[in-house]
Amino acid sequence: MSQTFATLSEFRALLAAQHVVDEAAAAAAQDHNMQLTKPPGALGRLEDLAIWYRGWRGGDRAEISAPQVIVFAGNHGVAARGVSAFPAEVTEQMVLNFQHGGAAINQIARANGAKLDVVALDLDNPTQDFTQAPAMSEEDLVAALKAGWDQVDETADLLVVGEMGIANTTSAAALSCALLGGEAGDWTGRGTGVDDAGLALKTTVVAEGVALHGGQGDGLESLRRLGGRELAGMAGAMARARALRIPVILDGFICCAAALCLEHTQTGALDHAVAGHQSAEGGHARLLEALGKEPLLQLGLRLGEASGGALAIAVMKGAMACHAGMATFAQAGVSDG
Amino acid sequence: MSQTFATLSEFRALLAAQHVVDEAAAAAAQDHNMQLTKPPGALGRLEDLAIWYRGWRGGDRAEISAPQVIVFAGNHGVAARGVSAFPAEVTEQMVLNFQHGGAAINQIARANGAKLDVVALDLDNPTQDFTQAPAMSEEDLVAALKAGWDQVDETADLLVVGEMGIANTTSAAALSCALLGGEAGDWTGRGTGVDDAGLALKTTVVAEGVALHGGQGDGLESLRRLGGRELAGMAGAMARARALRIPVILDGFICCAAALCLEHTQTGALDHAVAGHQSAEGGHARLLEALGKEPLLQLGLRLGEASGGALAIAVMKGAMACHAGMATFAQAGVSDG
Repeated sequence: MSQTFATLSEFRALLAAQHVVDEAAAAAAQDHNMQLTKPPGALGRLEDLAIWYRGWRGGDRAEISAPQVIVFAGNHGVAARGVSAFPAEVTEQMVLNFQHGGAAINQIARANGAKLDVVALDLDNPTQDFTQAPAMSEEDLVAALKAGWDQVDETADLLVVGEMGIANTTSAAALSCALLGGEAGDWTGRGTGVDDAGLALKTTVVAEGVALHGGQGDGLESLRRLGGRELAGMAGAMARARALRIPVILDGFICCAAALCLEHTQTGALDHAVAGHQSAEGGHARLLEALGKEPLLQLGLRLGEASGGALAIAVMKGAMACHAGMATFAQAGVSDG
Repeated sequence: MSQTFATLSEFRALLAAQHVVDEAAAAAAQDHNMQLTKPPGALGRLEDLAIWYRGWRGGDRAEISAPQVIVFAGNHGVAARGVSAFPAEVTEQMVLNFQHGGAAINQIARANGAKLDVVALDLDNPTQDFTQAPAMSEEDLVAALKAGWDQVDETADLLVVGEMGIANTTSAAALSCALLGGEAGDWTGRGTGVDDAGLALKTTVVAEGVALHGGQGDGLESLRRLGGRELAGMAGAMARARALRIPVILDGFICCAAALCLEHTQTGALDHAVAGHQSAEGGHARLLEALGKEPLLQLGLRLGEASGGALAIAVMKGAMACHAGMATFAQAGVSDG
């Protein structure tokens, strides 16, 4: 796949020309599903997921054998406003933890047979504080989108993207508010655990950012003004996965804010993605509703790092194992009611 | 573990003397959890599950490496009343499908690294139609409980039990109604897919059974009168898992009806079990509420075969992988806020 881009308008052009679902593959999956040794519909969402997966993946039925998880890390100028319970240096400390195998995502990726890649995006150079200026220049944004685009493994058959970045729930809340409306307080939550005063400050900061940059309407311009490098990295990776016919599992609030920027640039840009889970961060349920995504898991996670999305790999693996591996009524000699 | 039983009263005595949670192990787990490199509580239910698992498993922290899935099959005399969308011979056909590796549970167990055992319980000898007589004699019940008890692998570190048995949602509905009250129609659903007339008949049959046998109060006596061999097998296996300190994941409506019989024999008998999922069969949500269990997954499954419980193995594996494998703040040199 030699597609690439060097400018934002070239990236927009790629989004506009993206793959659609393979209707023939989806129809073949639907037909096969009806022959499997179970009452119709008895596997519930697993059946819908298998048909959806084959439609986006194309080709013959196959189990999922090469999932990839990518965690992007970035630092945010707005962290200096004190919107997080943790200091900004934790972003880099956690990247080292990922590299040494000590974080939650290392364990969850391993438990689900997924390859894990960690991409630290210019951590020594935080974005601008978005209450003062756009978070990124157009060049910064393109570089981060491209870092994500280039990181997707062409041999992967499922992609989960996630993030690490102190203050990035503030960025995600600002993007959600700017693109979907409502009050700043509708989108802010406790993130990694701010107290009441911290939450009030965070809400003020989001409102300031939206007042300065909001109402642009365009997803990528909002991403540049209110987002961050790790959000852009996720967006680039999700777009590349579409180009490679690799279905995507979304992670939590910040991942979905990055997804929202793609969807508000090109309607349908997330049709190759399912929601891995619903986070305990309050804005996430609202954001999933706006994206029209029903989460696979609701376990109260609010960690980021792709952790909830990677846990949902098991659901997709189960769905495709059943779809690809079950006997048909004819093969098994089972009466079909 | 040399414990065994030859009579129902001996089984009752084992239930009365069952293990309680290992408070020291749970406290150690709680303490360790607070040191892991994540904001407190950010892994949501995964943290609670890890602490719960270690409390029931006892000993040091460890990943889950040897899950066992057991599917019990039995035939029901009440099937002759026409309460299922499938003919009774499908029970045996599906057992062959399990043995040949073609069913959903084969794929889900394999995808989750679980050993699968299939136990066909006297399929040529259906239970009595419970609208006419008790489903089983005391000897039948004890034999089925013991088949379950003996099937649990002493080296397993997690157990999922499930079932196959045409007409067994009818049996589960009757047990639920007899032990928890309400109208028959509160507990009946479409099972594998009966139509409106089939559902009405099924509700009548459940009401007849409860009228003849209900109000006994005792779980094991209700199991004998309204249950089936596969339900008793599951109950026996769940009790044995408790004796072996093997935590249990419950499957759907029928599995939970078997669990209810244990709980109504000995309060707390299911404290070593979590609910793997909430089935699309309507009575299951109500039954989970009565058992005080919050499901790990809600994916609309209604297949039985331990399928939903086995899918939830991935959640428990993820929880224990994080608990056992993550670095502490001190190990990773991460600032803890």
